[in-house]
Amino acid sequence: MSALGKVYLIGAGPGAADLITVRGARLLAQAEVVLYDALVTPEMLALCAQAKLISVGKRSGQRSTAQTVINQQLVDCAQRYQLVVRLKGGDPMLFGRADEELRALEAEGIEVEVVPGITTALAAAAATKQPLTRRGVARSVAFFTSSTAPNEPDHPALPETDTLVQYMGGREAAATAARLLAEGRRPDLPVVVVENCSRPDQRILRMTLTGLAGGLDAAQGPVLVMIGEALQQRSHQPS
Amino acid sequence: MSALGKVYLIGAGPGAADLITVRGARLLAQAEVVLYDALVTPEMLALCAQAKLISVGKRSGQRSTAQTVINQQLVDCAQRYQLVVRLKGGDPMLFGRADEELRALEAEGIEVEVVPGITTALAAAAATKQPLTRRGVARSVAFFTSSTAPNEPDHPALPETDTLVQYMGGREAAATAARLLAEGRRPDLPVVVVENCSRPDQRILRMTLTGLAGGLDAAQGPVLVMIGEALQQRSHQPS
Repeated sequence: MSALGKVYLIGAGPGAADLITVRGARLLAQAEVVLYDALVTPEMLALCAQAKLISVGKRSGQRSTAQTVINQQLVDCAQRYQLVVRLKGGDPMLFGRADEELRALEAEGIEVEVVPGITTALAAAAATKQPLTRRGVARSVAFFTSSTAPNEPDHPALPETDTLVQYMGGREAAATAARLLAEGRRPDLPVVVVENCSRPDQRILRMTLTGLAGGLDAAQGPVLVMIGEALQQRSHQPS
Repeated sequence: MSALGKVYLIGAGPGAADLITVRGARLLAQAEVVLYDALVTPEMLALCAQAKLISVGKRSGQRSTAQTVINQQLVDCAQRYQLVVRLKGGDPMLFGRADEELRALEAEGIEVEVVPGITTALAAAAATKQPLTRRGVARSVAFFTSSTAPNEPDHPALPETDTLVQYMGGREAAATAARLLAEGRRPDLPVVVVENCSRPDQRILRMTLTGLAGGLDAAQGPVLVMIGEALQQRSHQPS
């Protein structure tokens, strides 16, 4: 029996090929096989052109590979290759279902290492030059997903942090805004929406909480919604 | 009058030199001058050995440069150099006081670009292989600082997200734990503490909320405290 390979769960970051970490890029260039998500961009895959590429993409409304199948593919790859990369959009440990993949690999005694990635909220804050915290104004920030949104049967309360960031929020953002208004947040609270963050077709929308409650135009790509006083545009800030 | 230079606010990440982004590393290698924080490691500064290095470090209990002085230094550098880097530990837009530096530069008409960095929470999640969210268990996470802790005169409520991450929490973590217990959180709620994340002297402590309420050993370096059900160690997880 041959020795088992090692699996690296790597965060690709938001999309731009140079927003992966130096460590992640180095490992991609050494990988024998790379299992990647739908959110991973072609320019990122160019960093591992030598590797066998396996798409296991999941995307809302599109065909996807079931998580159990992905888990099994990872185990199979570690039995056949020495350096296996599981490449995930953003960061693996935040909304990345890393727990399930770690469990499956650990149960087989396969060594795993995690390489963090730039999560979209931080890339969006950078792209819009809009900090998520601000001294004296915003000292806490929450990241949550659409699955915590009000259309879910068991939706919990919205976070009560100063800044709120909803991931994959295109469809649910209007309902989130309506709930925040009902909870007494200011109607003119600043909102920044970033679609296709860090990519050539990135789109930035600035509005108020009331505007967000009116709904978003149909988005073509992943949407991040940032809400809070910290998102207020500065007086000399270039648009 | 010569043209003004451009300032890059760059996130250095948690400390390891290869956890900066590819974009950040490339800009560091091109920089003429780099103004850096106390949390930026010597191995990171080796990436910009060609540049003039200016320490503007701030660290609790140690001598530091006032923010207004840093702002003025940035403006002065942009008047003398074409490529100026402001290098910050972690990510510039999360607890990085970027707002103040952006305002000062924009008021002078100086061009600024922000390059995101790996924030310590994500590096700590990777180092401990402990995801911050988990399907069906933890769907939201909040990042907050010690300045939101109970010893502050005007401390607000603690975030009610599934997972809580307290930055620079060494001194305040026991009080946070006591408050969470008083709010009815489970005494055996898992807690993971990471000191000197991603550095050679990294230290990982696992405990319960009750244990945290009993206090932490005196920390030698920056401490991140992660609290929540998602931090439960997995059955086959290597320690």
